[in-house]
Amino acid sequence: MDSIQRLRNDYPWIQTPLVVGAPMRLIALADLAVAISKAGGIGFIGAGTDVSDLETYLESAGMLLQDSPVPTTNGTIPLGVGFINWGADLSVALPVIARFKPAAIWFFAPSSVATLKDWSERCRRASPHSRIWVQIGSVREARDVVWHVRPDVLVVQGTDAGGHGLAQGAGLISLLPEVDDAVSALLPGAERPVLIAAGGIVEARGAAASLLLGASGTVMGTRFLASHEAVLAKGYQDEVLRASDGGQTTVRTKAWDNARGTKGWAETHNGRGIVNRTYTDAVGGMADEENKRLYEEDVKKGDQGWGADARLCTYAGSAVGLVKEVKGAGEIVREVREGMKGLVKGTRARF
Amino acid sequence: MDSIQRLRNDYPWIQTPLVVGAPMRLIALADLAVAISKAGGIGFIGAGTDVSDLETYLESAGMLLQDSPVPTTNGTIPLGVGFINWGADLSVALPVIARFKPAAIWFFAPSSVATLKDWSERCRRASPHSRIWVQIGSVREARDVVWHVRPDVLVVQGTDAGGHGLAQGAGLISLLPEVDDAVSALLPGAERPVLIAAGGIVEARGAAASLLLGASGTVMGTRFLASHEAVLAKGYQDEVLRASDGGQTTVRTKAWDNARGTKGWAETHNGRGIVNRTYTDAVGGMADEENKRLYEEDVKKGDQGWGADARLCTYAGSAVGLVKEVKGAGEIVREVREGMKGLVKGTRARF
Repeated sequence: MDSIQRLRNDYPWIQTPLVVGAPMRLIALADLAVAISKAGGIGFIGAGTDVSDLETYLESAGMLLQDSPVPTTNGTIPLGVGFINWGADLSVALPVIARFKPAAIWFFAPSSVATLKDWSERCRRASPHSRIWVQIGSVREARDVVWHVRPDVLVVQGTDAGGHGLAQGAGLISLLPEVDDAVSALLPGAERPVLIAAGGIVEARGAAASLLLGASGTVMGTRFLASHEAVLAKGYQDEVLRASDGGQTTVRTKAWDNARGTKGWAETHNGRGIVNRTYTDAVGGMADEENKRLYEEDVKKGDQGWGADARLCTYAGSAVGLVKEVKGAGEIVREVREGMKGLVKGTRARF
Repeated sequence: MDSIQRLRNDYPWIQTPLVVGAPMRLIALADLAVAISKAGGIGFIGAGTDVSDLETYLESAGMLLQDSPVPTTNGTIPLGVGFINWGADLSVALPVIARFKPAAIWFFAPSSVATLKDWSERCRRASPHSRIWVQIGSVREARDVVWHVRPDVLVVQGTDAGGHGLAQGAGLISLLPEVDDAVSALLPGAERPVLIAAGGIVEARGAAASLLLGASGTVMGTRFLASHEAVLAKGYQDEVLRASDGGQTTVRTKAWDNARGTKGWAETHNGRGIVNRTYTDAVGGMADEENKRLYEEDVKKGDQGWGADARLCTYAGSAVGLVKEVKGAGEIVREVREGMKGLVKGTRARF
């Protein structure tokens, strides 16, 4: 059974090429996840590091799904849940997973491969039909995870991604084919995880390219920041629409984590966001304490706290310049999916 | 006339999808450039910053082309020449260009857009049928160059590229579509330059992906380091074959420029190479003087001077892990071109 068929079996409501919504912490909640799944994608709720609200989010999702049921298998709910493993509490998460049976469970940034294996095994026992997705950012991580955890899906995140990921990395154009080869060498055949691409993809061109690189589907995060269903301040969303030339105007840094007092991310990880004063002052040598104090002042400003000359964090990927309009998440999913099909067809005709 | 037809008109010997050999300084000389063009690609001779040997290289190329002529238009020679403009002497280059009429002239890293315009205009006068290619690494650079210089070809270099490029940048997956849109908005229609992708591409998957991102052809550099025709030390080539997981094992830095005493690159530019002692010591705080002294000691060691625990510079892109074998350059061109066709065809069938 090839990877596309496996996806269709495991998530019977999807249409291909598959579009996935990233589990953005505090932003991708029930509305966004359900809208994406209803449009034939797979929406993820971002549980992040604090799973105390997860049950509420899933109850909301259940309500939203009552009007227009989406076909699933084995009683799973037709969406996914994403954890940032180093911070999430497994004992709180397990009963919620057992109760709601998300079709997919996405792991990222565990403190070790051993804890990842533990999460994976216990989630599988709690909900045997939930599929395990693991996000990696290097060939070595891919090998370790595939060998020890045997995930159903490997999310391959390139360094162009917005928000957190490996501080040091490669773009999908080189990372994805090498991961593909490494995984095939390790686990040939049916045991091999399905590869899904993430990082720097906001529309059909990047999404279609990811299929040629070896992916069977594509994740978007930044693009859904400009959706009606995303939960974020207007100041944040406006900044996403404003920014262009993301290779020059976004950076990977720990400056925003430091200014927000977010501790717990390993030294190996940082986040990509749109350059603003928090970053330039940090690079300029401002003490963390002072940067944090100024950050907190900008928090009080609401939407005015975002912008190139302000301080609040605008995590976004390097493709942010291609995001120019706020739309419904379902419309985005359909547009990208149809665009991918057209591009693959058209490119064949050109040569 | 679409971009593919323009390429076929300007370079009548090529086969599409087009594969181009990067003008790697000191490495891509007559043998490599001619082998690539003979296989239906476009080979470039790297003139780099010092054009004093360019005439000799082109004479060699002329000899190599005598045995098996390659069809060209208007008396051009069926290959290109690449300059690093900040260092190259235009007055020395011009008579050579006038004499040999390379089919393509590639510019990179000028000290200003004004000097780039000057190079472009004077080369066009010296050889009216030579096409002007300009390499850029950001959307802003693309806009400036297209507006002021009107190149025939824009080489869009993603940050995964080996060797020199913008210190800060995005991968092709986000950069190329945004450049495509920006260029179309600036110059719609026939005046629009043809886009060629570079950076992190070493084989058919990345090359095919670049077509979906908006390119009409693809440049490879790192891949041709592992060709019989490249001029480089075995120690360098072995290191290219050894390295894997390039997102983790290559870095962008000025450490090798500093250790080699290469001055002249702007602050905005640095080079990607395989991590070794020169880099780790520089990051660890070693003074440039001492690092340079140790570098010069390793130069004396020949092939032993390359390696993770040695010091000599191994410029290579983040896709270096996919390069595992030394082949003839012509075979590489044919393999990548046929691979691209097969992938585009196969991907359409999958969905």
